[in-house]
Amino acid sequence: AGLPKLGCQLQAGKEVRFNPEDDNYDHQLSVRMACVDPTTKDELNVVEIEGQDSEGQKVKAVLATLKPSSLPSVCLGGFEITPPVVFRLRSGSGPVHISGQHLVIMEGDQSFDEDEEEEEEEEEEEETLTTAKKRPALVTQKLSVSSGIN
Amino acid sequence: AGLPKLGCQLQAGKEVRFNPEDDNYDHQLSVRMACVDPTTKDELNVVEIEGQDSEGQKVKAVLATLKPSSLPSVCLGGFEITPPVVFRLRSGSGPVHISGQHLVIMEGDQSFDEDEEEEEEEEEEEETLTTAKKRPALVTQKLSVSSGIN
Amino acid sequence: AGLPKLGCQLQAGKEVRFNPEDDNYDHQLSVRMACVDPTTKDELNVVEIEGQDSEGQKVKAVLATLKPSSLPSVCLGGFEITPPVVFRLRSGSGPVHISGQHLVIMEGDQSFDEDEEEEEEEEEEEETLTTAKKRPALVTQKLSVSSGIN
Amino acid sequence: AGLPKLGCQLQAGKEVRFNPEDDNYDHQLSVRMACVDPTTKDELNVVEIEGQDSEGQKVKAVLATLKPSSLPSVCLGGFEITPPVVFRLRSGSGPVHISGQHLVIMEGDQSFDEDEEEEEEEEEEEETLTTAKKRPALVTQKLSVSSGIN
Amino acid sequence: AGLPKLGCQLQAGKEVRFNPEDDNYDHQLSVRMACVDPTTKDELNVVEIEGQDSEGQKVKAVLATLKPSSLPSVCLGGFEITPPVVFRLRSGSGPVHISGQHLVIMEGDQSFDEDEEEEEEEEEEEETLTTAKKRPALVTQKLSVSSGIN
Repeated sequence: AGLPKLGCQLQAGKEVRFNPEDDNYDHQLSVRMACVDPTTKDELNVVEIEGQDSEGQKVKAVLATLKPSSLPSVCLGGFEITPPVVFRLRSGSGPVHISGQHLVIMEGDQSFDEDEEEEEEEEEEEETLTTAKKRPALVTQKLSVSSGIN
Repeated sequence: AGLPKLGCQLQAGKEVRFNPEDDNYDHQLSVRMACVDPTTKDELNVVEIEGQDSEGQKVKAVLATLKPSSLPSVCLGGFEITPPVVFRLRSGSGPVHISGQHLVIMEGDQSFDEDEEEEEEEEEEEETLTTAKKRPALVTQKLSVSSGIN
Repeated sequence: AGLPKLGCQLQAGKEVRFNPEDDNYDHQLSVRMACVDPTTKDELNVVEIEGQDSEGQKVKAVLATLKPSSLPSVCLGGFEITPPVVFRLRSGSGPVHISGQHLVIMEGDQSFDEDEEEEEEEEEEEETLTTAKKRPALVTQKLSVSSGIN
Repeated sequence: AGLPKLGCQLQAGKEVRFNPEDDNYDHQLSVRMACVDPTTKDELNVVEIEGQDSEGQKVKAVLATLKPSSLPSVCLGGFEITPPVVFRLRSGSGPVHISGQHLVIMEGDQSFDEDEEEEEEEEEEEETLTTAKKRPALVTQKLSVSSGIN
Repeated sequence: AGLPKLGCQLQAGKEVRFNPEDDNYDHQLSVRMACVDPTTKDELNVVEIEGQDSEGQKVKAVLATLKPSSLPSVCLGGFEITPPVVFRLRSGSGPVHISGQHLVIMEGDQSFDEDEEEEEEEEEEEETLTTAKKRPALVTQKLSVSSGIN
């Protein structure tokens, strides 16, 4: 299947792009933790994400601000983002580690009969519940998770 | 569709209003992180939101108090707010970055037949589950997310 | 409807009682954040809640301990409490800001026919899902949220 | 009903046992916050829980490490534990306050007819949803919450 | 059943492997807290996990960075990982305590009749909901939790 991985190390001038190949699956990121490294300078490190809004316009948001001596880690509470997305340091020279989950929704074959409308409804609901639970591995053949660092 | 974005930078005297156009959709904000900037002075910065209660009365609440040297970021745990809402600094000169998700519930056509009662029940339940999961992108045609900074 | 608001400022000797009028609705508080103020003295401020157990016995719990210089805000993760409840400072002179959501479950008319048993089951489930999602505004006529500060 | 309470104050040499009476109900703890007291010495206080694994073997885990001057409170994110469980300080002399929710699942009468299999399925699902939502008070007759301090 | 336990103490050079025996059950870890010990040196301790992506490739991620004097505990928010997984200190000499939940999905007998397709759908959905709720003990015969320290 060739699933992309979520998890990376950010440094000044080295952004990380997360853009799964167009495989007809729905991809979702659930970003969990941002953590400094022992080699991170004692300054404020600001993690920024850049994504797209529903019209394809570029939007940016600050995910976390960390400082080794006061806040070396912060839980992001499962911040959910739809790729494509770029992670970068807006300030600070890093490194900052980002970890989380990459959810892939595998739709399977969808052959519609006359109950098309209703069937579709059901499938949608099921998928939504499934991914929302962040337990993809429990729904084999449907969902797959990958959390790592490149 | 012209979806408003959630995500902003607050500064003393510069409040940010979030008021989606009246488009017959339900809008919901899920505010995730509040973070200081390297340019933020080392003082307590208090983020306040102002919304409305069910009677249209103005209500205010403190979302977060940050200080660059002790708590540069705080996870808000997905604090959910129904717009219209104003974000501002109640104390401190900022800047403070706010990020989160803007959920839009697109209801679609609802032509009711004799099964109206039951159908409605089902739709309500589905929508509730859907938004609750904060995975709007997984329910294409129903929900749309935008997280950014203006 | 006259919905009570959640959100308050605690000071030594000034407790805040949250006791919605007896309106046949179910009320639930989801307490999200506790934050100090720039005027809060640099000492430990301990937030206590007092509620009732299932037998009507008074019970107390410590919600948060804050100190301006080390932990000016803390996420309570959506601590859920059934009113009536009193919030107060057990130690420290405050002020401490508390914010969260006040959920009201409006049951609507429940005229039971011969399918009473089954219908009731369904309604219960739906309400549970609904409130659990903390997205009351999405279920108009059923749930209403108010987050503010008095 | 005589529901036990969750919520306690731990001190060196004073562990707190949580073991609901055997009442045929399912009990679950959702531990939310650990907080120091103004009388807590400025040292690391380590909160340990001791429970049982599925074979009845004793297992221990560290829930939180707090220090008044650096981290006076920590959100445990709703750490769920099935009683019986013992809370104690593994290090430090305390006091440390623990708060959370005690969920009781009241099963009600279960008279099975020929649709036993299916009915059971439905009930299981409903209960799971119900408790999972941590909104026991919304499901009167099924679930009851008690959060307090002894 | 012989359930493995989640919960461990990490030290430099002493990694902890979590690899449940191949028992046809689905296993899932929900990692909740990372905490230092009073014996932990005042340096940055970086907790790393190593797992596998969907292709069996080794992936690593940083779970938390702790320092006794500034951040002695951090909530990981229920970071979910599918075993096999290795926990280790990437930096620092520890000890660092990790705690969480180990969920086991017991599938039971699955004898498929002509309604195979539909039945399977239902079972999947139920399991997903079940585990997602992290209330395994409430679904006796289906799920079992173990949180401890070895």
